[in-house]
This record gives sequence, C-alpha cells and structure tokens, in this order.
Amino acid sequence: MASMAAAFIKPSNAFPHSPITFIKTTSPSIKLPISLRIKNNAHRRIRVSCGLIDPDGGKLVDLIVDESMRAFKNREALSLPRIKLSRIDLQWVHVLSEGWASPLSGFMRESEFLQTLHFNSLRLHDGSVVNMSVPIVLAIDDAVKTRIGASSKVALFGSDDRLVAILNDIEIYKQPKEERIARTWGTTAPGLPYVDEAIKNAGNWLIGGDLEVIEPIKYHDGLDSFRLSPAQLRNEFISRNAGAVFAFQLRNPVHNGHALLMNDTRRRLLDMGYTNPILLLNPLGGYTKADDVPLHWRIKQHQKVLEDGVLDPETTVVSIFPSPMHYAGPTEVQWHAKARINAGANFYIVGRDPAGMGHPTEKRDLYDPDHGKKVLSMAPGLERLNILPFKVAAYDKTQGKMAFFDPSRPQDFLFISGTKMRTLARNKENPPDGFMCPGGWSVLVEYYESLVPANNGSIPKPEAVAA
Amino acid sequence: MASMAAAFIKPSNAFPHSPITFIKTTSPSIKLPISLRIKNNAHRRIRVSCGLIDPDGGKLVDLIVDESMRAFKNREALSLPRIKLSRIDLQWVHVLSEGWASPLSGFMRESEFLQTLHFNSLRLHDGSVVNMSVPIVLAIDDAVKTRIGASSKVALFGSDDRLVAILNDIEIYKQPKEERIARTWGTTAPGLPYVDEAIKNAGNWLIGGDLEVIEPIKYHDGLDSFRLSPAQLRNEFISRNAGAVFAFQLRNPVHNGHALLMNDTRRRLLDMGYTNPILLLNPLGGYTKADDVPLHWRIKQHQKVLEDGVLDPETTVVSIFPSPMHYAGPTEVQWHAKARINAGANFYIVGRDPAGMGHPTEKRDLYDPDHGKKVLSMAPGLERLNILPFKVAAYDKTQGKMAFFDPSRPQDFLFISGTKMRTLARNKENPPDGFMCPGGWSVLVEYYESLVPANNGSIPKPEAVAA
Repeated sequence: MASMAAAFIKPSNAFPHSPITFIKTTSPSIKLPISLRIKNNAHRRIRVSCGLIDPDGGKLVDLIVDESMRAFKNREALSLPRIKLSRIDLQWVHVLSEGWASPLSGFMRESEFLQTLHFNSLRLHDGSVVNMSVPIVLAIDDAVKTRIGASSKVALFGSDDRLVAILNDIEIYKQPKEERIARTWGTTAPGLPYVDEAIKNAGNWLIGGDLEVIEPIKYHDGLDSFRLSPAQLRNEFISRNAGAVFAFQLRNPVHNGHALLMNDTRRRLLDMGYTNPILLLNPLGGYTKADDVPLHWRIKQHQKVLEDGVLDPETTVVSIFPSPMHYAGPTEVQWHAKARINAGANFYIVGRDPAGMGHPTEKRDLYDPDHGKKVLSMAPGLERLNILPFKVAAYDKTQGKMAFFDPSRPQDFLFISGTKMRTLARNKENPPDGFMCPGGWSVLVEYYESLVPANNGSIPKPEAVAA
Repeated sequence: MASMAAAFIKPSNAFPHSPITFIKTTSPSIKLPISLRIKNNAHRRIRVSCGLIDPDGGKLVDLIVDESMRAFKNREALSLPRIKLSRIDLQWVHVLSEGWASPLSGFMRESEFLQTLHFNSLRLHDGSVVNMSVPIVLAIDDAVKTRIGASSKVALFGSDDRLVAILNDIEIYKQPKEERIARTWGTTAPGLPYVDEAIKNAGNWLIGGDLEVIEPIKYHDGLDSFRLSPAQLRNEFISRNAGAVFAFQLRNPVHNGHALLMNDTRRRLLDMGYTNPILLLNPLGGYTKADDVPLHWRIKQHQKVLEDGVLDPETTVVSIFPSPMHYAGPTEVQWHAKARINAGANFYIVGRDPAGMGHPTEKRDLYDPDHGKKVLSMAPGLERLNILPFKVAAYDKTQGKMAFFDPSRPQDFLFISGTKMRTLARNKENPPDGFMCPGGWSVLVEYYESLVPANNGSIPKPEAVAA
C-alpha cells in the first residue's frame, strides 16, 4: 500500500511565514542513528546502533508466541479460566502484541495503571521514564473474578471462541471507574463515547499480566494488508533509507489542507538537512464513535487521495494504527505520539485540538484547542520526539486552494469544518475546487449515499471532529 | 514550641512484626549530607555540601522582599491594578513566600498548571523533575481581568486592604474548572470542600507570575510562633544536629496510635544507624473543612500531648504547615510530602488513605485507602524522599493500649474511628484508657463544649476523616 500510484505534488512556496515551529526538547542527547543523521558533516560519526530511533524501553516488544509453540499453548489454554474479549479488548491485545505500547508486555497491573492515571508515564526499573498516558487495561466482572479464583493465568478468547492469548502472572485489582474517567478525560460528563462503549458497563475489576498472543491479530476485513506492525514499519523505513520519519495521526478523510501540511513538513525537514524524510500517514483503525467516517471508507478515500497525486507514494507510507480511540484530548495525544516512537517516527505532527471533541453535555470544545500541543511538548518520556505543531489550514479564496491561514487577511479565507465538509458530502454538494481531490470527495459522497436513511428519511447528522 | 516540656515515653518493643516497611526508591544516588549520614564508617566521607537534604530545585525559594525595599514596593503598588486575596489565596501566598513549593516563585503560569494537572510534576530548565501535584493558582474574574488590561504586574491586597505582594511578569489564562477538578480530585461530584470554597465561585481566569511578598505573612491569632518557615525548620534541625528528619502530616488530634507510630519510627531509624532522628510533627494549618477540629484547638491538644509526655520534646519539632487542604487523596499526599523535602525532611510517614475523605455523594471512601502510599512511592520528583508506610494502629484490649493491629488476633483489637472519637468527646464520654492522654482528651471535650448548639439543640455531627 505504500506504493499506491500517485503523482508527486511539489509543496507550495507561497507561505513565507512558517506555520510550523520546532519545539526544542530538553533531552540532553537525542540519539541520531545513521539513517536519521542530518547532513552536517560535523556530526557525521559512525555509531554502532544503526537504524531508527530506539523504541521505548530500548527494545520493541513482540508478544506473538513462536509458531512452534502454538499447539502447546492451545493445549495449555484448555485448562485455564476463560475470559471473553470484547471488540475493543481485542484491539488492545493487537496494540500490545506488536509493541506499539512498548515496553508494556501485557494489560496493566495496578502499579502501571496508577502511574498512567497520575503521571501519564511509567518509571522503568533502570529509573528511566517512558510516556504512557491512557490505561491499557482489561476489565472483568465479579463472576469472572470468582471463576479465576487462585489461578495465576487465564486464557483470552475472541468473540468467535478462538483462543487469542494467555495472560500470565495475573494481578486482579479494583477498577475505580469514576476516578479513571475523571483523570483520563478531565470530565465525568455522561456521553463520552469510549466510556459508554468500554467502561460504563464493563466489570468492576481489572486484570493485568503478561500476554502471550497465539498468532498475529487479523480482522479479515480486506484491510489487514494495511496493518503494518511497528517492526514492519521500521523495516519499511530502513528499506527506503529514511533520513527522518514524520508521523501524522488521522481519523478523518484527508483534505488538501492536510496534504499541504504533510508536504510542507517534508520540505522543511529537507531544508533542515534531513535526507529523505518519510511520511508515516497512520490513520487510526480501532474503535471510533458512531458519527466518525468508518475505517474502510477512510482507507478508500486515502487511496484515492494518493492515486490523485496529492501525496507522493515514494515518500509516504500509509498504514493503519490499530488503537481504539479515547477522544481524551491532551491525555490521548501523548499515547498517539508515543506509539509512533515505537513505530520508528522521530517527528510527530500535532494540530489544533488533537483527539478532542465537543463537550458531551455543554456547547463548547471539551478541551482547550491549544492544550494538546502544549501538553505534548511537556510530556515526560517524549523528550526524544520532535513535536511539530501546525496552524490550521483554510481555503484561500484568492488562490483557490488550501493554504495556511494568514491572520493579516482573514477575509480571504474560508474555514470548512468537519461538520461542514460532511454536510456537503451528505447533500451531494461540492466543496470549493481545491479543497479535496475529486476522487477523494466522491468516496465521501458515496459513503453518505450508502447510509440507510432512518425511519424519518433523515441521515444521522455527524458532529464536528478535529483533524 | 519545640521545647514543650514533656517526658519521654520509651517506644514499646511488643510488636515483633514490623508494621513499617521502607520502600526502596530508584534514585541512583541519595545525597546524604554530613548531618544526615548514617553511622557506617565505610560511607563516612566529608562532603562540601554539609546540611540537610537539598530543597527541590537546589535552592530554597524566599520571596519576601528585603526590608530596605518595602517602602519602595509600597509606592510601586499604588500605581498597579489591584487584586483582593481571599483567605485561601493568602495562605498560598504564605506557602509560596517561604519556599514550601520551591522552586515555584509565584502563582503558576499555564505551563506549570498544565504540567501539574497532567504529570503531577514540573520539568526544570536543566531537565530535572520536581514533584508538584496540586495547582497553586490565583483566580480572577472578568472584571479584574479587564481592569488589569495590559499591565505586566499587579498588586495583591489582603482583606484588611493592606498590600501583601506584587505579582510580576504576569500571565493570564483560562481556568478550565471542570478539567482542573476532575484531574486533581478524580471526581467532579458536588460537595468537594475545597472546590466549593475556592473554585466553584472563583473567576474563570487564572493569573500567574513571580511574587514579591512585602513582609512575612502573619495571622496574629496567637499561633504565629508555631509557624516556622522551611528555612527556620532547617536551622532548627541543624542546631539539634539531626541525623535524619522524619515528617508526620496531621490535621487531627494526636492519639496514642499516632504517638506509637512516631516513636516507633524513631526507634527504627536508630536501628538503621541514623544518629538522632528528629520528628517534624507538622499539623496542617490552612483551610480545612467545617467538620475538622479547628487549628487552635488542635495545637492546644498537641501541646497537652507533649506536656503529658507522649512525645519527646528533645527529638520533636512541632510546627504548623501553612497550606490549605484539598482533600485530594493520592494527588494531595504528594504535595504534603514534597513540601516537607523543602522543610528538610528526608523521611515521610504515610498512613492509610492520606488526605482522603468520604465520597461527597456516595457511601464509600473517595479513594482506595492504599492508593495514597502506592502513588507516593511512585511519584516523579520524590525519589530522594524515603516513604514510610504504616499499618493502622488500634486499641489492643489485651494490653489496654494502642498497638499496631495484629491480623492473627483481630478479636483483641478495637478500632476507634475519627467519627467515633469525636462522638465520644462530643458526648463527654471517655475513650478506653490508653487511647489518648487525659490532657489531650480534655481539650477535645472542651472544644465540643465550646460549640454553640444549633436551634434544635444538636451539635453538627462531624464526619470521619483519616489521620
């Protein structure tokens, strides 16, 4: 998928005032391995550690059991207490199994859970700190807890009753739901999508332990080939001889403002002296709320965008990030960034109100739209990552295309929100020329056509979501 | 006050199973200056830095303006926009002025506020991390914000219209009340005492900046001599030639269970080889909720306890910690511990459910009673502090005195909760002999007698609070 046919659009030079600023981190020594070295001969030294940025904890976690052990593990599981995984639980097993959450080796025990809730980070045995902002936990109810009894391990099964994993050396502890929600989301207002989906009706206990995942998680939805693991992504970057990797998190269709931003970032990295910066366009593929555009439509739209030549396939890797979505704003954006370190990215693009949404009960943003990038730039354990905040792009009526907003001539710009974009697509209207490539737009229109109208003939109105 | 006459009661040796465990911290090198050195000749080296544990940030903050500058600052304030401080605001000025919150040099700007909310810690310019778990902020409303306009500094006045401080190089930013409450308390339930008192009706803006405090904060309530600053406490410890300082945070009357614990801790520190461990008995003196025993009654009770010989005045320093109380459990206990590093303590005693209270709307503890000590042992920036968790003491009917609970013979123990204790005192009944020294108990009875009965003749019932 990384080689979807597409023409390369040269980044525009029309924006003299840099909308991207490079936040200096306080890390005393950013390790720049060979392939990420900048073109400055003064710094050109051969190092033993060749390759990409180190994963958190120094080593990429891989929890898939060796193929030779599968039959044995299947037999072992027969004797163990069983836990049935929800759809979201399975997505977390996937995330953990491939090392996106390195150095986590399974669902959190209480010590990790508490550190995540209070500090958004974990202290490792060697005293170093890695970022970990959202709890990755598995809930069970009283009945399951009783069934587990004194067993030190449990077997995790999917909805199809196939064995997914064994959880070893388990620890069961109370799930303080209200506290978890308050500390993760900064609100306990009713209507938080992930809370309603995965916390409210889940059990009052959490079970942590070390995972052994029987085989790589597959969804058989036609998109598995888009789901590269962090190890596969790292191999891809090495094979492309990446001089830097910059990641862009997305759970929406790509419009030309996004593309402008990504292309502009590449140009700036080149200007800074990085050879061959590679874009990791990494749409979120796990649970999203009902009014977000579903994954397979988004991937179809991304494909069209690449086919239409908005992004350069030579320097772009499109792959699905398998995490579920919390919509926890400044807390969650740290998780999104941290996971991309593990996938090999040393630059992370952050926009306005990342992982944010409207307040579920009040007419306002749930989070201050600037807090996401501020918190990200301060977050413990992310010192090695270069954060690239950007200003919102808007439709420049004088140029007939998306451009970074120029506050000196606000009258020239048209802001097309997610809500507006989706309303247009739903009504089969067209956005202004240059907002999105025609192929991508037609996918959006097709998606809304595919929705079965409700009884009263209307289609559920999507809410605004941030890019 | 540190020399209140009192006889020394030898700690009991009747508890072979240590109720105190020493949590090993991960700090690579705990700096043990001369006077804190343990009696192990192998480690006896002369160091340049003699004295106590270093304050956070390396230097104890002192924000009191030099006396020679007072007149000048008073004149300067005449031209500045004014802010009237609430009682709690003034307590925070006090806390900041003496360096309890070192290295904070004034009310938090947004960067510090966000780090506190999300990480319970601050990263300093040199990359080091200090703990800072509760926001120390000053709220203003729209009208005051408008009045400040473009001024870069403001004058802070007390309720008596006397100038208290000047706040320099100010930054005004939004107060996200719901998010602040959720992330600090882990709940947004109505009825949190500090929230009702200091947040709910305060302004929607926060103003941060560097404080210049005109003169030391005094309350003229007869207790000012009990309010030693961190610098004065450090001098006191040095003058006593302390080999270790262990702090005990209290906002309740001292009973013999507390005393057992403090005396036992001293004995254990001696056993470990520390010379002359000094107890900092440091009752909280700022805002407390209405049903807590007021400060001056608590101090009166503490005096009696020392006079009755329950604690040794030679090795005990009693002094008031001027902070207001948040009742924010695991979040707040970090603040309580961190402030005591600044006061010179290198050991901190933590009990069950520190800074906890009942859930304001549900019949349960607001926090898991074990989370406080767990979070404290993991908290960033507290690696240099030795955390001493302890088990609850109870009344041992077989010995007729307070003892550490022995789970092998639960029937022998009587738990006397704070609620029970206060109900007894209110009804002028006596607790079992050995629960509290008679002098201390009579103060409690006297306090409840002093309360004016409500119209129906009943006295408001106090709620349970943790030690």
